[in-house]
Amino acid sequence: MTSQIYHASSTAPVNIATLKYWGKRDKTLNLPTNSSISVTLAQEDLRTLTTAAAGPDFKEDTLWLNGEPHSIDNPRTKNCLADLRAYRKELESGDSSLPPLSEWKLHLVSENNFPTAAGLASSAAGFAALVSAIAKLYQLPQSASELSKIARKGSGSACRSLFGGYVAWEMGLKEDGSDSKAVEVAPKSHWPDIKACILVVSDDKKDVPSTSGMQLTVATSELFAERIGTVVPKRFKEMSEAIKKRDFAAFAEMTMKDSNSFHAVCLDSYPPIFYLNDTSKRIIKLIHVLNETEGEIIAAYTFDAGPNAVIYYQEKDEAKVLGLLQYAFAKVPGWKNTGYQISAKFPAEIIGEDWYKGVSRIIQTQVGDGPLDTEECLIDTATGLPK
Amino acid sequence: MTSQIYHASSTAPVNIATLKYWGKRDKTLNLPTNSSISVTLAQEDLRTLTTAAAGPDFKEDTLWLNGEPHSIDNPRTKNCLADLRAYRKELESGDSSLPPLSEWKLHLVSENNFPTAAGLASSAAGFAALVSAIAKLYQLPQSASELSKIARKGSGSACRSLFGGYVAWEMGLKEDGSDSKAVEVAPKSHWPDIKACILVVSDDKKDVPSTSGMQLTVATSELFAERIGTVVPKRFKEMSEAIKKRDFAAFAEMTMKDSNSFHAVCLDSYPPIFYLNDTSKRIIKLIHVLNETEGEIIAAYTFDAGPNAVIYYQEKDEAKVLGLLQYAFAKVPGWKNTGYQISAKFPAEIIGEDWYKGVSRIIQTQVGDGPLDTEECLIDTATGLPK
Repeated sequence: MTSQIYHASSTAPVNIATLKYWGKRDKTLNLPTNSSISVTLAQEDLRTLTTAAAGPDFKEDTLWLNGEPHSIDNPRTKNCLADLRAYRKELESGDSSLPPLSEWKLHLVSENNFPTAAGLASSAAGFAALVSAIAKLYQLPQSASELSKIARKGSGSACRSLFGGYVAWEMGLKEDGSDSKAVEVAPKSHWPDIKACILVVSDDKKDVPSTSGMQLTVATSELFAERIGTVVPKRFKEMSEAIKKRDFAAFAEMTMKDSNSFHAVCLDSYPPIFYLNDTSKRIIKLIHVLNETEGEIIAAYTFDAGPNAVIYYQEKDEAKVLGLLQYAFAKVPGWKNTGYQISAKFPAEIIGEDWYKGVSRIIQTQVGDGPLDTEECLIDTATGLPK
Repeated sequence: MTSQIYHASSTAPVNIATLKYWGKRDKTLNLPTNSSISVTLAQEDLRTLTTAAAGPDFKEDTLWLNGEPHSIDNPRTKNCLADLRAYRKELESGDSSLPPLSEWKLHLVSENNFPTAAGLASSAAGFAALVSAIAKLYQLPQSASELSKIARKGSGSACRSLFGGYVAWEMGLKEDGSDSKAVEVAPKSHWPDIKACILVVSDDKKDVPSTSGMQLTVATSELFAERIGTVVPKRFKEMSEAIKKRDFAAFAEMTMKDSNSFHAVCLDSYPPIFYLNDTSKRIIKLIHVLNETEGEIIAAYTFDAGPNAVIYYQEKDEAKVLGLLQYAFAKVPGWKNTGYQISAKFPAEIIGEDWYKGVSRIIQTQVGDGPLDTEECLIDTATGLPK
């Protein structure tokens, strides 16, 4: 039986938006109300590894996630699989020597290299890895942008994880979503020295899930139309240009403003949605004071649908940025390199001694690559089951 | 000398906006970027008492506030005094029998019946009482709306404290501010059963003062134009109508939405301004859950430029509203009447045992009257100094 199991493995990265996706114009196809931009993060620190296997004796499409069997019986995952099978079918119909993988069931095994408890949205990396692994298994010729449309149907922001570096998700205009896809703004090599420090913030309450949060904002926020109609389109162009010019100050200022704009329309929803907590606000304040005391913008914060902060900075400013963050959050686990000192210019007395208690974990990372092939295999090719 | 000191005393109320004033189009004249609406609160609970005295031997205009001498050497107070003196001058020039009060210096003594530490903006009541007391001393014939323009120059929202009940501040269009004034939407007697429970929220940080906060929002928020140009004008009409129809559900929903919209444009400012803290957000959540479990809107929250919550409700719903608030915040000082029980329908388990620590004081009050004359006098008429 072993010979009849085909398998392939890919890893895919997490991405953190600097111009936020918030609002769907089509819930089934995950078509957004605005274009967005993100930075892809390094897979050494944050990635999903997925092995996809197909065999004639597999009974049903099955997914194991971090060691646990997971239902695949949801329209989003089904949509992804159907699209990938259709592309495979095209190949098979043109070349009868190909094994009929499109007709066989799939076994999918996925693992993250970071704890789910970190509260980092893993669905982007998850769907990107799933699509990449199956595309590799099926030997599909489609481009990353084409595949990004499939990942998008699984989880909107997953489409951006099909590229490394600096990525735009062009919202598109068509009803069928055929022009709503990720494209590269610039590769990692264009601006390789962007680093990210993630502060995982403890929270006592459950956040509103992003899908229902978006729908509430679209339906109720009276400021939302202005954001998607005017604010974001202008910022999309300007942020793309700032990336191309490697203009960190402009990129960083727009990143902070867009995070605030996104959280503002959440607050303007009814009932209001709050993702930032008092610790998040303290981090925002620290970054503004840092930039003020340095006399230039050397760091940017951004917050997704939760209280976790992602701080972007350039490698050349690492001592200044980490000097501050390590002063405030030295006792938090996860620092890769320690020993940076806070600048004498910084008014350290504004930092509360117990602020570190609001942060549960640090993840230091940087801009990274898109999905990668790997020889690592999570499936026992004798049984077709997870190793 | 005694006979030559003239004096008069007035009290004026606090008002809490339900449609928020946020943004100045003219900083000197305190002309707003949008019209606003407020409820005037009862003076038994919150008021400023001011005695104004004029005497030929007074050396300079002097103000004592809560027992301490205060500088009057600021353009806002000077503008108020100049306007009042000009009106007095008109009277004197038409009747030579009148004492020349307009030429004499003023001694002004003001006292609040609530602790400044409560963090309640007292400038509205303060300027309203100051203008009312001097207008009474000067025996000015001007209407409350005319006097509101003078109070407005002292502190924008003070103009609304010239009326009781339900008050609109019409922004006006003229550059000289002559049409930017308070008017009555409805008197207290029209809708006398609106109550307010103020939760004074403890905070560890200094808020951005409202004047500089407004200027920052006007200058930097990209959503602000939509708020003042579209959202507020529509809401102004609808809220005025809801008050006239005593439609509490509509009034309450708009009150909550406008509070959120105001805080959203604060968050959209750069750097962002945060007035709501985690305790504020918990109170917001409690009110939404209360309204959901009751199946109708029986309470509304609103927050000014700070974390304090004001909860409006109708007297008939007091047991339900205070039942919830007393369950969560029973240990906080200031309750007038206790013993209400939380509804069995309410999911009380969402309330943290230590949430009460975030609230330092309760003030129970209700809709109230505009400025009142009083015989109480804070000045020793023999010396012209505070008693």
